Amino acid sequence: VTSFADRLDEAVARAGTPALVGLDPHLAHLPAPYARAADGSLPRAERARLVGDFCLEVLELVAGRVAAVKPQSAFFEQLGADGVAAWERVVTAARERGLLVIGDLKRGDVSSSAAAYAAAYLEDHPGGARACDAITVNPYLGSDSVAPFLELCRREGRGLYVLVRTSNPGGAELQAVGVPPLSERVAALVVRWGAELVGRSGLSSVGAVVGATHPGELARLRAAMPRTPLLLPGYGAQGAGARDVVGGFLPGGRGALVNSSRGLLFAWRASALGEARWREALLEALERMRGELREALER
Amino acid sequence: VTSFADRLDEAVARAGTPALVGLDPHLAHLPAPYARAADGSLPRAERARLVGDFCLEVLELVAGRVAAVKPQSAFFEQLGADGVAAWERVVTAARERGLLVIGDLKRGDVSSSAAAYAAAYLEDHPGGARACDAITVNPYLGSDSVAPFLELCRREGRGLYVLVRTSNPGGAELQAVGVPPLSERVAALVVRWGAELVGRSGLSSVGAVVGATHPGELARLRAAMPRTPLLLPGYGAQGAGARDVVGGFLPGGRGALVNSSRGLLFAWRASALGEARWREALLEALERMRGELREALER
Repeated sequence: VTSFADRLDEAVARAGTPALVGLDPHLAHLPAPYARAADGSLPRAERARLVGDFCLEVLELVAGRVAAVKPQSAFFEQLGADGVAAWERVVTAARERGLLVIGDLKRGDVSSSAAAYAAAYLEDHPGGARACDAITVNPYLGSDSVAPFLELCRREGRGLYVLVRTSNPGGAELQAVGVPPLSERVAALVVRWGAELVGRSGLSSVGAVVGATHPGELARLRAAMPRTPLLLPGYGAQGAGARDVVGGFLPGGRGALVNSSRGLLFAWRASALGEARWREALLEALERMRGELREALER
Repeated sequence: VTSFADRLDEAVARAGTPALVGLDPHLAHLPAPYARAADGSLPRAERARLVGDFCLEVLELVAGRVAAVKPQSAFFEQLGADGVAAWERVVTAARERGLLVIGDLKRGDVSSSAAAYAAAYLEDHPGGARACDAITVNPYLGSDSVAPFLELCRREGRGLYVLVRTSNPGGAELQAVGVPPLSERVAALVVRWGAELVGRSGLSSVGAVVGATHPGELARLRAAMPRTPLLLPGYGAQGAGARDVVGGFLPGGRGALVNSSRGLLFAWRASALGEARWREALLEALERMRGELREALER
């Protein structure tokens, strides 16, 4: 099997951009007619269908323009089993359109549970839902909690993104504590976990999540993890710009994905185009993001 | 609303034991006829139904004998949307039988996603699945990642168990690092997060997970979190005995739950009773656990 890292590296080169589209279907922000998903008086299955339909429209818009999408599980789980059925529909549709899928699940558990999570999200379901190409995981429980995921990375060509330094305000409370800071200890584990999963591209299939909202730490963490694909959240709605993410890249604009979720999906809310033209607003925001990243990386 | 801490304290007194039954339906370990859940050639919905049926039988056996159960989400998610439907069935059935439900989900995410997870698991679904009474959460992302859960604890009388020191071998890699160790920093956050959620019982609705496999650390962490309900995994299959958990309790055998999952559900595998009498083996193991805990706590 071709490694996740190699597939991603090729897909980014083909798309011509490291932009990653975060699929965070906030019920309260969806445009009409999908906004009805927020209506608690509708049957839950109907609400979940609207969430899935919205995401499928987004996939249609962005396919061919980006290498990968990142659905956020919380917004699907919010609608229970119906929401998870919508999640499966979205993952399968994205893969059928040739998009890589990074499931934003942030799972982390003792090894027997981790093995079940790995089977849930990194293996195709018999006769049904497709697996994600990669998922995000939480490192707090240490090596044996990550081992079952690594096993599937090896066997099925899947990938992981380990939370190292998150983009949210509270991220520093634990991650920036200590000498060296906890995030650097996690980075060392990420390098070790990924050492046997380096592909022909020179990149490992074990990546790291590092918020673009901390450019200094980003540069240090990039240096500490020279073969690790990074997933950089925080661009756009969370305040980081194209110049803030540059330090996360390897030469040639390789080795990192820059995520934007709300800034793309709900671009119409900050645009003169208005709700009915949310598709144009999304594409305009995506073109702007692609351009800004290209310019920043060419300097 | 009555706080989770107060409801739990009363339920433990009524049950006469701090034993907590972990619902970890490992597909490979289920007794006949449920063992067919492991057969990948069966339709997934049928496999999930078997998992749900097994758990419902366990609920029937343990209701009235313990205060609470702890379903582990991974084993349900493994069967996708069908598995999550089984999860909802199990949570609802447990609550209808008067058992408190601690959803073992270990979620942790930035605040907008955390709010969706909180809605998913701590709020009843309109016209459908019941909420958990409490869930486990991962502290790696800090205070703003926990805030949406705290909001529902306040408003709906729910509870949290924050991972502080886990029972697995890799737990020490990050949690025991630093001076003071990371687990003690997390314990201080747990105390802070729970300070405004202390009920009439004197206990907070923000609890902590501390592995029973590290008795020395357990005693230190108990001292650092004097009003925090503890959830102690590691008893039985993971090697900790009744004496190892004593240091996690407050006077009068209050303030802690001791979890056993495999040691109860799959007691038949280590018993002369055999597979067909798995129910008796489970009840025998549960009575033994209740007796051992009673004796250890009375010393």
